[in-house]
Amino acid sequence: MSHTPVAIIGAGPAGLTLAHLLHVRYGIESVIFESRSRADVEETVRAGVLEQGTMNLMRETGVGERMDAEADIDDAIELAIDGQRTRIDLAGLTGHHMAVYPQHEYLKDFIAARLDAGQTIFFETEVTDVTGYDDDQVTVSYTTNDGQQHTLTADYVMAGDGSASPRRKLVTELPGAVRAKHEYPYAWFGILVNAPQTQKELIYAHSEHGFALISTRTPQIQRYYLQCNPDDTVDMWSDERIWDELHKRVSTDDLRVSEGEIFDKAVLRFRSAVTDPMQRGRLFLAGDAAHTVPPTGAKGLNLAVADVAALAPGLARAIKKNNRDLLDQYSALAVPRVWKAQHFSYWMSSMLHTVPEQDYFQTQRSRAELRSVLSTEAGRTYLAQQYVGLDLPKFEV
Amino acid sequence: MSHTPVAIIGAGPAGLTLAHLLHVRYGIESVIFESRSRADVEETVRAGVLEQGTMNLMRETGVGERMDAEADIDDAIELAIDGQRTRIDLAGLTGHHMAVYPQHEYLKDFIAARLDAGQTIFFETEVTDVTGYDDDQVTVSYTTNDGQQHTLTADYVMAGDGSASPRRKLVTELPGAVRAKHEYPYAWFGILVNAPQTQKELIYAHSEHGFALISTRTPQIQRYYLQCNPDDTVDMWSDERIWDELHKRVSTDDLRVSEGEIFDKAVLRFRSAVTDPMQRGRLFLAGDAAHTVPPTGAKGLNLAVADVAALAPGLARAIKKNNRDLLDQYSALAVPRVWKAQHFSYWMSSMLHTVPEQDYFQTQRSRAELRSVLSTEAGRTYLAQQYVGLDLPKFEV
Repeated sequence: MSHTPVAIIGAGPAGLTLAHLLHVRYGIESVIFESRSRADVEETVRAGVLEQGTMNLMRETGVGERMDAEADIDDAIELAIDGQRTRIDLAGLTGHHMAVYPQHEYLKDFIAARLDAGQTIFFETEVTDVTGYDDDQVTVSYTTNDGQQHTLTADYVMAGDGSASPRRKLVTELPGAVRAKHEYPYAWFGILVNAPQTQKELIYAHSEHGFALISTRTPQIQRYYLQCNPDDTVDMWSDERIWDELHKRVSTDDLRVSEGEIFDKAVLRFRSAVTDPMQRGRLFLAGDAAHTVPPTGAKGLNLAVADVAALAPGLARAIKKNNRDLLDQYSALAVPRVWKAQHFSYWMSSMLHTVPEQDYFQTQRSRAELRSVLSTEAGRTYLAQQYVGLDLPKFEV
Repeated sequence: MSHTPVAIIGAGPAGLTLAHLLHVRYGIESVIFESRSRADVEETVRAGVLEQGTMNLMRETGVGERMDAEADIDDAIELAIDGQRTRIDLAGLTGHHMAVYPQHEYLKDFIAARLDAGQTIFFETEVTDVTGYDDDQVTVSYTTNDGQQHTLTADYVMAGDGSASPRRKLVTELPGAVRAKHEYPYAWFGILVNAPQTQKELIYAHSEHGFALISTRTPQIQRYYLQCNPDDTVDMWSDERIWDELHKRVSTDDLRVSEGEIFDKAVLRFRSAVTDPMQRGRLFLAGDAAHTVPPTGAKGLNLAVADVAALAPGLARAIKKNNRDLLDQYSALAVPRVWKAQHFSYWMSSMLHTVPEQDYFQTQRSRAELRSVLSTEAGRTYLAQQYVGLDLPKFEV
């Protein structure tokens, strides 16, 4: 039976970033199991806003070159109330930037770096069982794409296999463990469009007709989102309805949303979830396997990166120095940051969306809040700092 | 029948401040009707935090002397989470101060100034009817404390007779008029205590046991508040229970809430209400007659002052220049400020109180919000600016 120091389930942002950090920073080997194909992982379009800390991590560990060449590095975002736009000067207010770089491009860079370094990723491989996490050694059972069953032993195992992770319940079944959830009364209808950029910087638009987000993928491909009902389906949104709503919510005399062929439509659900703790014995959760954030704050990928930025040195110290002190603190380090990101995502969502059932008091109060934030430098700075994100945790090993 | 340019109903902050501004700034006469006795008005203890703008107005109009001599002019407030206190340096963050000066002391100063100037206040006088506000002249019918009925004509009438004002419905019955309300799932149990100061600066304490506020009236008299249920009654709170809860919520190793004889107990309900518009023809609403805020943000008196700081020049221009332009804008000027104050009061309340029925997600999110605000200078500045308040409106007449 083969052995690896760290078994990693899931080639998403958490898994690939952890494997990369372990290898590059600490020379520690790992094995990644991913149920999907490499093509599927590399082609699934997700959101993609990288915080300054995530950009820094890519650059510091040698995988930032393509991001620096191809990403839109933005100084600012715009927030609008009924067409009145306010620029949030992220760079001026915080000294930090953000990059618009789709998640699958991020994953491509980490997959390429890993394969170039001769490290293992088992694609199309299903992990069927994980045992031993409460004992001296973990055993991972898995089935490869040829139907063959195998086992691997590991010192530690990290589950980064997304919001439906079967491993989460191993942690949440612990006495005192919590899985806190929140459902939102709205969702996003997301489209990909062959069209020129409406503008370079993102526009978060609040209007009485609902929220809309104007973002860009490339100079030729635009990503727009429209607030919709959580149970809306794709066939309820004709192209005509989409353009009509986008113009009502965003377009003004001096800015018109650029139109083009819509080649992808999807409904994105809004959910928040937090798992606490995020560890049990030799098993650790990271990224969506532990927590879900709504897309408004653009925190999903960045939280996964922050998780493993704390987990990697903990594992390294445990493996190389036989000292679990930092590893045992993993949850205590990660969870407060998760709650802050949940708050920010909830706050941005609540302030920017309209809730049809909401009473007049709450609607007007929320608009007054948005005006208070946008009309003062303190408000804009408070928002901008949370948008660009906290610094990533760093620890000596 | 006698005539006055401006009839004012209510000798509260709105009424007395309006009469004073009209007289001092514009030489315009007015008559004030107040249903209570002078002693009652001057002895009813309410909250009392004056924003910088309110302090400035008192000084500029010659009624700031006693406030400057007797008020606690504070540079800062403290916010605590489970005993961990963070100082919000109001003066350093905003350049402004706040004064702890009880509302009845504010009223005393304005009553004295008015009577010294030979201006009229009818105490113990009930306004029984107001007519003519849609026409060329207002008629106010009133009954003095000897049972005599009288009438007075006026060019304009301002209702500043509190949250139960019978005049409000004259405005809200207009087509399109709004009366928006919000009820909170908590209240405050307020006590007055003969005790030395716990500390000079206010402490807003969030704890898992509920909210508490430590404030001071004089070096010998302290004002403490404890979060309680909205339907609690005074007899449900023994002295022992009060001290027990105050210590649980506030006291720490290095700060102990000072105890003493409790000589007043009362339950303060939490309500928000906004009236829009705040005017009809020759009738204007100001202060609590138009809007109610929960006490957390200390905005009640200050909003009344802000209302009449916009109304006084509007009336003056209408009376002296026969130009109603500014007067017709009164609601449009006042209401956005009211909504910002409502938001601030709601936000402070929500962030600082605990809601027993609230789910774990919202409780933790709210604590994360409080930590985000307190742990960053941008967050503290955003809070401090709203706490010290917006500048008062100023207009040439």
